[in-house]
Amino acid sequence: MAVRRTHTHMADGRDLFYFDDSEPYVSGAATRRLDDPRPLTPRFGPDSPLARGPQMRRDPLTGEWVPMATHRMDRTHLPPADANPLAPAKPGAEYSDGEIPDTDYDVVVFENRFPSLLRVPGEPDDATALDGEEIWEVRPAVGRCEVICFSPDATKSLADVSETRMRTIIEAWADRTAELSRLDGIAQVFAFENRGEAIGVTLHHPHGQIYAYPYLTPRTTTMLGQARAHRERTGGNLIADVMAAELRSGRRVIAESEHWVAYVPAAAKWPVEIHLAPKDTSRPIPDLAALTEAERADLAPMYLELLARCDRFFAHPDGTPLRLPYIAGWHQAPVGEGRDDLRLHLQLFSIQRAPGKLKYLAGSESGMGAWISDTVPEKIADRLREVATAERAGITTPRSEP
Amino acid sequence: MAVRRTHTHMADGRDLFYFDDSEPYVSGAATRRLDDPRPLTPRFGPDSPLARGPQMRRDPLTGEWVPMATHRMDRTHLPPADANPLAPAKPGAEYSDGEIPDTDYDVVVFENRFPSLLRVPGEPDDATALDGEEIWEVRPAVGRCEVICFSPDATKSLADVSETRMRTIIEAWADRTAELSRLDGIAQVFAFENRGEAIGVTLHHPHGQIYAYPYLTPRTTTMLGQARAHRERTGGNLIADVMAAELRSGRRVIAESEHWVAYVPAAAKWPVEIHLAPKDTSRPIPDLAALTEAERADLAPMYLELLARCDRFFAHPDGTPLRLPYIAGWHQAPVGEGRDDLRLHLQLFSIQRAPGKLKYLAGSESGMGAWISDTVPEKIADRLREVATAERAGITTPRSEP
Repeated sequence: MAVRRTHTHMADGRDLFYFDDSEPYVSGAATRRLDDPRPLTPRFGPDSPLARGPQMRRDPLTGEWVPMATHRMDRTHLPPADANPLAPAKPGAEYSDGEIPDTDYDVVVFENRFPSLLRVPGEPDDATALDGEEIWEVRPAVGRCEVICFSPDATKSLADVSETRMRTIIEAWADRTAELSRLDGIAQVFAFENRGEAIGVTLHHPHGQIYAYPYLTPRTTTMLGQARAHRERTGGNLIADVMAAELRSGRRVIAESEHWVAYVPAAAKWPVEIHLAPKDTSRPIPDLAALTEAERADLAPMYLELLARCDRFFAHPDGTPLRLPYIAGWHQAPVGEGRDDLRLHLQLFSIQRAPGKLKYLAGSESGMGAWISDTVPEKIADRLREVATAERAGITTPRSEP
Repeated sequence: MAVRRTHTHMADGRDLFYFDDSEPYVSGAATRRLDDPRPLTPRFGPDSPLARGPQMRRDPLTGEWVPMATHRMDRTHLPPADANPLAPAKPGAEYSDGEIPDTDYDVVVFENRFPSLLRVPGEPDDATALDGEEIWEVRPAVGRCEVICFSPDATKSLADVSETRMRTIIEAWADRTAELSRLDGIAQVFAFENRGEAIGVTLHHPHGQIYAYPYLTPRTTTMLGQARAHRERTGGNLIADVMAAELRSGRRVIAESEHWVAYVPAAAKWPVEIHLAPKDTSRPIPDLAALTEAERADLAPMYLELLARCDRFFAHPDGTPLRLPYIAGWHQAPVGEGRDDLRLHLQLFSIQRAPGKLKYLAGSESGMGAWISDTVPEKIADRLREVATAERAGITTPRSEP
C-alpha cells in the first residue's frame, strides 16, 4: 500500500507529519500549503516560556514516576472553547485558528502543544533530590506526546472510517512507534485513543494520542515481572502463551482472522474488555513496527469490526445504539531491556457497565488497585459474538452455545 | 474511653456489631431490640442461593486477583431505591425495612449482604485451573466485606460528627481490623470510605466499608516491594522514613499534633491528596489496632480537621463550599509476611481538580497505570494550610511563605 508521509514543522517548531492514503494525495503536496503560517513563539527560543521542561518525581512508596505541571507553560494561546484545533484550515483563510496548516488531510500526526512529557534541548536530564532528600528523586520528563487525527471530519468517529483510512492510521502508528523508539531516553511507546465524554474527552474530533515515556509504566513493569517469572518457569513467552491458551479454550474468542485473534481475557476486570493479538508466534512481534504487510492489511478490517461491535454492545432505552465510551491502547514491548519478554497486543475496554451506568473506581480500585468485576468474561464474550456485523471478509466469529 | 461493643446476628445469620459511645447506651442494650426480626433466608442454609461463594481469577498478565460475580446471588430482596437500608428501624414498626434492627445506634458494623468476598462454610478453597489451563488460576474469594455506619442520621456526613463519635468510629475500625486479621485466609484489612456522587456513591447515609482481602492487593504488593528494597539499601522502614523526610522538609506538612502528622506526599498523583501517619517510629505500628489510647484520642480531632479542610478546599461559583468527593483509606501492614515492612497510614484523596471539573482516568492512567499530575504537591499543601479551621486544640498548621 502506498501511504505517503510528509514531514514539516509547525510555526513554533513542532514536528508535523501528514500521512496520505493514495494518489491524488490530499495533503502535504508541494502545490498545497505545507507550512504553518501562525505567528507562534518558537518553543525553545529566547522568548519561550519553556525555560525548563516538565519534571517528574518518583513516588518512593510505589516506585512510580509522576510527571507534574511544575514547569510554567503559557497556555493563553489555547483556542476558544468552540474552536476545533484539529480541523483542517479553512480554504482561503490567511492562517488557521487550529493546529493543522493544510486545508485537507487524511491522517496527520503532530507534537502536542502542551505536553506533559518533553525534552527541552540543552536541559540536562540528571536526577536531583527534592528538598535535598535522597528518597525523592526528580528528573526532567524527557518524553514526547503526539496527537494523531484519524479523519479531517470532526463529526466522524474512528469506527466510521474506511478500511483504507484505517490502514493508513496503522501505518502512521507503526511509523511513529519506530521513530519515537529511536529517540534518546525513550523507554516505551504507547499509542492510544480515549473516546467519549464519560472518560473526560471534551474534543470530539476523532483523534488519538501517542506517548513516548522516558520510563517503564507501572502496567508494563508489572507485566514484565510476570513475563520473566513465566519464562523462568516454563521457557515460554507470557503474552504468546496467554493467547495460545485463549485459542485452545476458545470460550472467550470473539473474532479471528488469518493473522489476528480477539478475545475477552479470562480475568477481564472492565465491564467490556477485548484483547487483540497477532497470531504468529514463530517470531517476536514486539510492536506495531514489526508487523508484516499482510498483518497490517488484515488488522484494518479487524480493528473496525471490534469498534463496530463495541457500538452495538449496549442500546439506549429507546433502542438507538449507545456509542460506547472506550479506551483503546497498544501495549508494545519496551524499547530496551525486556523487549524479548513482551509482545504487541491491543487492550480495548470501557467503563460502561449498562446504559446510564458507569463503573466507578472507588476505594478498592483507586486506593488499593484491587479490582472487583461486576460481570464475568464469558458473558462479555457472548455479547460481543451476538453483535458481530453481518459480514466482513476474512473474519470468523465463534458462536456461543445457547 | 468506654465504648461498649455488642455482638448480635442478623436474620440471615450475618454478624452485626453495635459500638456505643457512652452511657446511657443508645443501642444494643438488653432493653432495646437487639435481634433482626426480618424473615430472611439463612445465608448458608439448604434454601440459600449461595451454593458457592464468589470466585476470583488470577490475571496472568499482572498477577492480580480479580473477584468476579460468578456466583449467582439473589439480589431481588434489595430495598427499593428510595429506602435507606442503613437507617435505624422505625420505632413501633414490626420489623425494619433496612439492615439495622435497633431503633437507634451510635456506630454499627455488619457484614455486607451482597459481598464480593465471602467464605462459604464447608466450601473447599483449593485452586483450580480455568478451562483446564494452568495459566488461569481460580480460587474462592474467601474474604469478608463489612459496612460501617458512622451516624444514625442519614443527612449527616462523617465530617459533621462529634469528636466523641469519631473516637468511637476509630475504636470500631481498630476492633474490626483486629478481628478480621485473625480470620482464616485473610491477607490484609482495608477500612475505607467513598464519599460523593462523583465517585459513584448512590447511598448518602454516612458509611464506610471494611474489606478483608484473601490476597495482597496490587498497591500493597508494590509498596512491599519498595519497602523491602529500601530496607536492604538503608536498613530503615520505608513508610517511617518517608514520613521523617516530610517532617524534616516541612514544605508539604499541613497539620501536626502530638501523635500525628498530615502532609501532601512529595509525589502526590491526585488533585487533592493527604497522607496521615502516626509519628512514633520507636515501635512498629502495623495497623489501627496497634495504636495506643493516646494516639486514638489524638486521631479523632485530627481526622475531623482534615475532612473539614477538604470541604473548604473548593467553593462553588456562588461562594458556597463544595463538599469534596473523596476516598479515604487506611493502608495497614499485611497480616502475615511483610508485616514488619509496612506501617499504618491514611491516604485521603479526591478526583476533583476544580469546581465542576473532575480528573478522569484516561488512556495513560487506566491503560498503563501511568499518572500525569495536573498540579504540584506544594500548591495542594498551600491550599490545605489556608483552609485550616480557626482553632482545634492540639493541632498546629505551618504557614506557607507568601
